[in-house]
Amino acid sequence: MPTHNSSMNPTQVNFNSPRKFRTTLKSKCKETFFPDDPFRQFKNEKPLGKAKKTLQYFVPIFEWLPQYNLKMFRFDLLAGITITTLAIPQGISYAKLAEIPPIIGLYSSFVPALVYAILGSSKHVAVGTVAACSLLIADTIGSKVSSKDDPTLYLHLVFTAAFITGVFQAALGFLRRLNTCRLGILVDFLSHSTITGFMGGTAIIICLQQLKGLLGVSHFTTKTDVVSVLHAVFKNRNEWKWETAVVGIAFLVFLLFTRYLRQRKPKLFWVSAMAPMVVVVLGCLLAYFTRDRKYSIQTVGNLHKGLNPISIKYLNFDAEYLPSTLKAGIITGIIALAEGIAIGRSFAIMNNEQVDGNKEMVAFGFMNIVGSCFSCYLTTGPFSKTAVNYNSGCKTAASNLVMAIGMMLTLLFLAPLFSYTPLVALSAIIMSAMLGLIKYEEAYHLFKVDKFDFCICLAAFFGVAFITMDMGLMISVALALLRALLYVARPAACKLGKLPDSTLYRDTEQYAEASGPPGILAIQLGSPIYYANGNYIRERILRWIRNDEGNGKAVKHVLLDLTGVTSIDTTGIETLAEVLRMLEVIHIKMKIVNPRLEVLEKMMKSQFVDKIGKESIFLCMEDAVEASYDFSVTTEKQGLEEQRSGVA
Amino acid sequence: MPTHNSSMNPTQVNFNSPRKFRTTLKSKCKETFFPDDPFRQFKNEKPLGKAKKTLQYFVPIFEWLPQYNLKMFRFDLLAGITITTLAIPQGISYAKLAEIPPIIGLYSSFVPALVYAILGSSKHVAVGTVAACSLLIADTIGSKVSSKDDPTLYLHLVFTAAFITGVFQAALGFLRRLNTCRLGILVDFLSHSTITGFMGGTAIIICLQQLKGLLGVSHFTTKTDVVSVLHAVFKNRNEWKWETAVVGIAFLVFLLFTRYLRQRKPKLFWVSAMAPMVVVVLGCLLAYFTRDRKYSIQTVGNLHKGLNPISIKYLNFDAEYLPSTLKAGIITGIIALAEGIAIGRSFAIMNNEQVDGNKEMVAFGFMNIVGSCFSCYLTTGPFSKTAVNYNSGCKTAASNLVMAIGMMLTLLFLAPLFSYTPLVALSAIIMSAMLGLIKYEEAYHLFKVDKFDFCICLAAFFGVAFITMDMGLMISVALALLRALLYVARPAACKLGKLPDSTLYRDTEQYAEASGPPGILAIQLGSPIYYANGNYIRERILRWIRNDEGNGKAVKHVLLDLTGVTSIDTTGIETLAEVLRMLEVIHIKMKIVNPRLEVLEKMMKSQFVDKIGKESIFLCMEDAVEASYDFSVTTEKQGLEEQRSGVA
Repeated sequence: MPTHNSSMNPTQVNFNSPRKFRTTLKSKCKETFFPDDPFRQFKNEKPLGKAKKTLQYFVPIFEWLPQYNLKMFRFDLLAGITITTLAIPQGISYAKLAEIPPIIGLYSSFVPALVYAILGSSKHVAVGTVAACSLLIADTIGSKVSSKDDPTLYLHLVFTAAFITGVFQAALGFLRRLNTCRLGILVDFLSHSTITGFMGGTAIIICLQQLKGLLGVSHFTTKTDVVSVLHAVFKNRNEWKWETAVVGIAFLVFLLFTRYLRQRKPKLFWVSAMAPMVVVVLGCLLAYFTRDRKYSIQTVGNLHKGLNPISIKYLNFDAEYLPSTLKAGIITGIIALAEGIAIGRSFAIMNNEQVDGNKEMVAFGFMNIVGSCFSCYLTTGPFSKTAVNYNSGCKTAASNLVMAIGMMLTLLFLAPLFSYTPLVALSAIIMSAMLGLIKYEEAYHLFKVDKFDFCICLAAFFGVAFITMDMGLMISVALALLRALLYVARPAACKLGKLPDSTLYRDTEQYAEASGPPGILAIQLGSPIYYANGNYIRERILRWIRNDEGNGKAVKHVLLDLTGVTSIDTTGIETLAEVLRMLEVIHIKMKIVNPRLEVLEKMMKSQFVDKIGKESIFLCMEDAVEASYDFSVTTEKQGLEEQRSGVA
Repeated sequence: MPTHNSSMNPTQVNFNSPRKFRTTLKSKCKETFFPDDPFRQFKNEKPLGKAKKTLQYFVPIFEWLPQYNLKMFRFDLLAGITITTLAIPQGISYAKLAEIPPIIGLYSSFVPALVYAILGSSKHVAVGTVAACSLLIADTIGSKVSSKDDPTLYLHLVFTAAFITGVFQAALGFLRRLNTCRLGILVDFLSHSTITGFMGGTAIIICLQQLKGLLGVSHFTTKTDVVSVLHAVFKNRNEWKWETAVVGIAFLVFLLFTRYLRQRKPKLFWVSAMAPMVVVVLGCLLAYFTRDRKYSIQTVGNLHKGLNPISIKYLNFDAEYLPSTLKAGIITGIIALAEGIAIGRSFAIMNNEQVDGNKEMVAFGFMNIVGSCFSCYLTTGPFSKTAVNYNSGCKTAASNLVMAIGMMLTLLFLAPLFSYTPLVALSAIIMSAMLGLIKYEEAYHLFKVDKFDFCICLAAFFGVAFITMDMGLMISVALALLRALLYVARPAACKLGKLPDSTLYRDTEQYAEASGPPGILAIQLGSPIYYANGNYIRERILRWIRNDEGNGKAVKHVLLDLTGVTSIDTTGIETLAEVLRMLEVIHIKMKIVNPRLEVLEKMMKSQFVDKIGKESIFLCMEDAVEASYDFSVTTEKQGLEEQRSGVA
């Protein structure tokens, strides 16, 4: 069977000697850690231009500031004012959720926004605190130090957690910039399904927690799961205050109505953006005028004038608390990154711009490091605020600058006015924000498209709602990893058949009209061929042979199409060698079709190519089929001889 | 661009409506859990024949006994006697390793061998105890109960662990037989590299431990790691006995010489098979004649006559000890299975027979369940014994029967003679057996073919040698899992080019002569497209486009070849949709080539097909390229119109 190869195959399989280990390792590491080659833009620059570009790359404000003009500023000013009115009520609310003094929430929209305006690369992200992370911080640090018994220590640990988050985020981003390592791979493993479920579950428990404020209950649980919270709400029925409930429900209905309005008429987005501020102002007025009555409304209380005090001296790295702060810092860091980057990217896509995820990581990181030194807790780019910023027509990160200035003025002059903010108003604001995070349509979409993704989402949802937030997250991530492992354990293989009137070989299950040439079993193997699926692949191939023979079709040739196989390990090669030996025994010839670079290299290094013979490796299915027919024509005796020489 | 499709493509992509969830789930579960359809052979049988076949299937002795004849028996008798002479010294030695009375080692070659002769499906496996598992049991149970302080309780826990191993193994095998579940997937994840490293590491620590016996040290450590053992050996230098050392080294040299002889002249295998027995007999004689001297040699001592006592009443499921026994039972069960099945299969391949792995599991399981009720500890099919059995020319499992009878006679009449066996002889036997388990050539093969496999192997080796056995195993398995996850995180994609004088599109890195048609970027994506690699794939595609444009080649069409992609999740589809949107913005058309069944179904369910348009999905690369050229000919205006309609 030697002649036809040279005459029929237009091109031969490339049997060049395998690449060096260093070459393959380098290219693999490059693929794994730097998929997008961040420094390409500096290649053809002069030193001065290079320095300028580098500065612009690291500090994006230098990129947009020179082109900045008054027209853009008008848009940014409007957007900045809009997000400031949103930032005040949200800041106070989420600080309550994190069980820290409400003023910290206001501080957290000032310094971090300044830092982001300088370092941030997204035009649309508006900086602020987020509900899910606030609750997660309270949950993690609260399990070590009670916010009621020792509020000062608790607060310092919250600052420390924010500092750790910042260092972690900046490190992730920097390592990549310095061409060292792309740990962003960590964030990759937090799947969209996990985030959807986690956010939904968090929204549910936060909403239920707000029943405390809405009903005016004063004794409550520190646990976050649905059962404990509902139990606490209904056990203290005697504390329910109908006046608070009425006010709260009225506020909530108002907020939900403005949200509904925005959905129906997107141009009225500013109504819903202003609504929380309206609720706070109304609430303040109500509280002020009823302050001496019998049924007074509980208020936030105690908001001092003045800018952020320096808190760097309070950062607490005591070994006793370090595990909790590290845990809180890193988990919230990953979640905030996953949310922040995804949001930045999705808004950038709408406007056809690119967001550099790793630059964003560094910006978020510095924002939190600096923030934690100035009495701020964890901040990121929350969806609601960013959407408002985008809809208000922001043009650059200057809208964050405007918000920072607005917040500064508030802190300097208006803060005491907000001490009258009733807790019930905050609860209504939080509840209405949280209801928007329960994305049932998204869950339904997952259910429709991919049941496993739906399970991953459900696991996060129920885990968060009924166990704890971190358990929910972990169960969901574990399920997602399991899915990846199951894929590797059972990569789909299929039987190929020839499509009529063509030279194409396709899956016979997908294309019913495709049929295998007589005497030939063509199989396309799935990728990768690893230790975890060697047994499976062997048994699967033997089963196909048995099935064919059971149906009265004698199999003389097995052609393995490796087009899709991008990776193989030693066990995988042993598996193929074992199949080769088994088939030889039952007088079936095995042929390999289109092995890829890495696969062929390993086959050569492990002498598999010598065992099967170079003449049994083909570049395409058609050549392999033709060669099989040539071979079938030769007499049985010749065939056996060749077989024997193949064994030797 | 509508006409050319119908005229040029011989066959269209099959856009039939997606299969039902039940259908896909059923077929997936079938692939995952029953890859080889075990009941196919019963399909066309009459009820009586079916019953007979079923009996033969479940109890293999009925399969071979009717055909059994005297000629076969002659072979089996010889093989059986040979393995009996090996079983006695090995049994005593490994029992010492497990820190249980040496007689248990002899018991363990009697009852389990009987059970295996009835249920075992392999002709070559010889039943016996193994060194690695013996040490692992001592390690795991010894950490809970000291074998010195409470030998009775310790022994009972060892029986219990064997019982648990049996139940675990039988369950694994049975669940599969009853068409319920294929948990054998657990064993799949123990890769060959892990086993090689684990066995090598175990061999090293066992060898070092034998220095105790070889040097006659009496104070020793219970830890297994290299550092502790060497420390214990050298700290007690004053206890070293040169007489013992001389005898031990003489024995060891003799054993290694016979092993060397066997390697040079495979026909002399019986010399090395008999050697341990010779060493034991010589040792006994030596010990007997020096028993009253000043420098007497330490012996095993105390071997009673009599068959296995019943031990079922000693099985101890006390909650206090259950965690240790469960751990010992399950870990040793998995290791023993992985070794036993692999060995059975490798000998079967030499003789062109098939071994049913799941049948073997059940046989091993019952062997251990019954064994643990009759004072036996963990048994499996060890490599050394099986190799001797095979080389002695065994024809059926009857050789195990012969060994069982031989062992029965030994227990009834000869046991007391072996009380004189010197410990130093046992140490020499163990050491010589262990040296054969350090497979450096195999490690070198791994190093040559696959560096990651080599790391997995090294991790197991050094983990076992320097930390503990279970830690070594866990680190190695974790590395192997990490490899699978890294694969999923970065499946290899490549750029395709057309081979000259052919219609084939192949990797341009592998085939330097392949070049992309102008204006077209053809990319073959790796499988799977999951949440963990969505970001990577997006950035990788954009980088190729930038590279091409950096080299002055304008890219007008991106063709994604999905031939190799066998699985996709919702994030994966979103990634493709995002790439589509991004490319639209920069006026590049995206086309999909040959989506597989599962991938196409999900694309349809998630409306991706509607977004990209059915006319942009092709069955083969050539069609897609031709369609791109057709399209390029049309005017820019038309192109833009189509683009717009594609967006809508």
